[in-house]
Amino acid sequence: MSDGPGIVYLVGAGPGDPGLMTTRSLDLIVAADVIVHDRLIPHDALALARPDAELIYVGKEPGTATVPQEGIAELLIDRARQGKIVVRLKGGDPFVFGRGGEESEALAAAEIPFEVVPGITAGIAAPAYAGIPVTHRDDASAVAFVTGHEDPEKDDSALDFEALAKFPGTLVFYMGVKTLSRIAERLIEEGRDPAEPAAVVERGTLPGQRTVSSTLEGIAATADEAGIRPPSVTVVGPVVARRERIAWLERRPLHGKKVVVTRARAQASELARRLDALGAESVELPAIRIEPRIDSDEVRRAVESLHAYALVCLTSPNGARLLFEAMASQGRDARALANASVAAIGAGTEAALAENGVLADIVPERLSSRS
Amino acid sequence: MSDGPGIVYLVGAGPGDPGLMTTRSLDLIVAADVIVHDRLIPHDALALARPDAELIYVGKEPGTATVPQEGIAELLIDRARQGKIVVRLKGGDPFVFGRGGEESEALAAAEIPFEVVPGITAGIAAPAYAGIPVTHRDDASAVAFVTGHEDPEKDDSALDFEALAKFPGTLVFYMGVKTLSRIAERLIEEGRDPAEPAAVVERGTLPGQRTVSSTLEGIAATADEAGIRPPSVTVVGPVVARRERIAWLERRPLHGKKVVVTRARAQASELARRLDALGAESVELPAIRIEPRIDSDEVRRAVESLHAYALVCLTSPNGARLLFEAMASQGRDARALANASVAAIGAGTEAALAENGVLADIVPERLSSRS
Repeated sequence: MSDGPGIVYLVGAGPGDPGLMTTRSLDLIVAADVIVHDRLIPHDALALARPDAELIYVGKEPGTATVPQEGIAELLIDRARQGKIVVRLKGGDPFVFGRGGEESEALAAAEIPFEVVPGITAGIAAPAYAGIPVTHRDDASAVAFVTGHEDPEKDDSALDFEALAKFPGTLVFYMGVKTLSRIAERLIEEGRDPAEPAAVVERGTLPGQRTVSSTLEGIAATADEAGIRPPSVTVVGPVVARRERIAWLERRPLHGKKVVVTRARAQASELARRLDALGAESVELPAIRIEPRIDSDEVRRAVESLHAYALVCLTSPNGARLLFEAMASQGRDARALANASVAAIGAGTEAALAENGVLADIVPERLSSRS
Repeated sequence: MSDGPGIVYLVGAGPGDPGLMTTRSLDLIVAADVIVHDRLIPHDALALARPDAELIYVGKEPGTATVPQEGIAELLIDRARQGKIVVRLKGGDPFVFGRGGEESEALAAAEIPFEVVPGITAGIAAPAYAGIPVTHRDDASAVAFVTGHEDPEKDDSALDFEALAKFPGTLVFYMGVKTLSRIAERLIEEGRDPAEPAAVVERGTLPGQRTVSSTLEGIAATADEAGIRPPSVTVVGPVVARRERIAWLERRPLHGKKVVVTRARAQASELARRLDALGAESVELPAIRIEPRIDSDEVRRAVESLHAYALVCLTSPNGARLLFEAMASQGRDARALANASVAAIGAGTEAALAENGVLADIVPERLSSRS
């Protein structure tokens, strides 16, 4: 891998939902020799990396030392000079508050070939998942994305709130809830209507996404009461009121449910993806790898928290038997499933459940979006 | 497929480059019973549709009658009531100047389950491909996306140029070149700096993307002289000047080259994708389907325009032989390839070329981004 110049791809991994990653980003993750990644990337994005790929974490954890921006650029240049295919994987889009401009210029100055692969930005996707269209022919023929945190040396007062307050469209702030009360106050001081609808979307497109809404005047208190935490985006504009009618995420059949999936890994991921599509948060319990491992920490923790699950979905007779073996090894029986509905995929699985004293609540013939 | 309520997915297909489609959009296209699509979707997006899927085109062609918005909503509702999985496929993002808000509310009112799948919007991706980061810590902590055409009953004078001129960040207009001179004029009248850098990106992320840049004052004339046509986006802001250093698309090894790819369809697409990644515009020549069809219109047209290609890439001995048969059937020989480099994938292909009087210029051992 040292026969010639390398290349760096500055890749947006989107807002968090793995389904919102681009096909090109996945191709590049598969091809990469080196992946330099942030904290806010989809949880299984790196699962596609080659086993021998070098994975380097440069995320910014709140309150800890981080790799400085110059250090990241040097790292990219260094690995590319070794002839490597380097993927710089960022949450959202590399050029929307993503420091991609600085990294691009550093690469260009070092004469390293590079390409930019856009991603979906949270300022569009988080509101969309909350049922808020950021533009609308009746309400907003413009939308603005604003941050105050991009340069830690500038404080938020550097933002021109007078001009922002006059902006003729939807405002989307990529800023923490800490600064929310000040943003709202300054916008109102500069003439924005205090009664204008506003919403905060927490963990947009991720499992457990939450949205609170109020007026511009009330939104900071509402978010505070609800205990909204980062990551979040704030939307201000008449379009927010449309959420009442459009909100679709909360209407999905399994919204807010946690589901345990037992199955060999590759199959489980496909199933988990389908459950995700129905609005469930799925937790994979890889029951079968090379041999059953009912004593692994992973299985033990899942068994201990079975009471927290609304649905336990067993996808094979082996999976069902192993679940009960694992439960038995921790002194538990079918009663541990008292809070959950139990689904069995296939008649064999249903029979294996019955052997263990559980009549499956759900036996779909085919797991589709309808069943 | 009529056993229960259907569902509608409002899906963004991204800015045009098929690699910028999300994995979820592809999954849904594969699953769809009905696809209702616009004009500006990636050229091979529909290739993944099931052969029995109903494809309905509702795009707006300039100057022709179109399906009115209400008609589209009725169509979606009607097919969903038949129990169908309906994908409403739009260019860009459904909620960024995409009428997705109206369609969502119509579906909600009709009690049809629906979901929204965001896509990458051209206002971010087209500048990114042109080497323009729409935000930058030094230049722009905000970016605004603006249209004037969303409601054909409102004219552009409805835009609040006074407020837009004051916007403290990058402005991106999703508007035709026709209106460009008026936009620039009004922004300058309202106080925007006439010397501020501006660029127009034509066919952003598509083969043949072009970018022209100038000042805000000069951009309309520059775009006019260059004959820029829709689709295009216009970017105004200091970030535009960074293109000089960042522009990466034009530096790709095959930028501006057209490549003919002969191979059975599935393989050709993979190869075409790799060539695309190197910056080439590839035209697939599906030489082998069930039987060789050297007399099809498609093949005939490709042979006629061979002189226009910079590289002809033959990926199998059969492909090479068929090309020469097709050429012979039109009274042509190896000389028709005089303007092109010829690449042979595999020794067999190289030999088949030699039989026909052509010594391959390029015989890569492996087609990677390096070779």
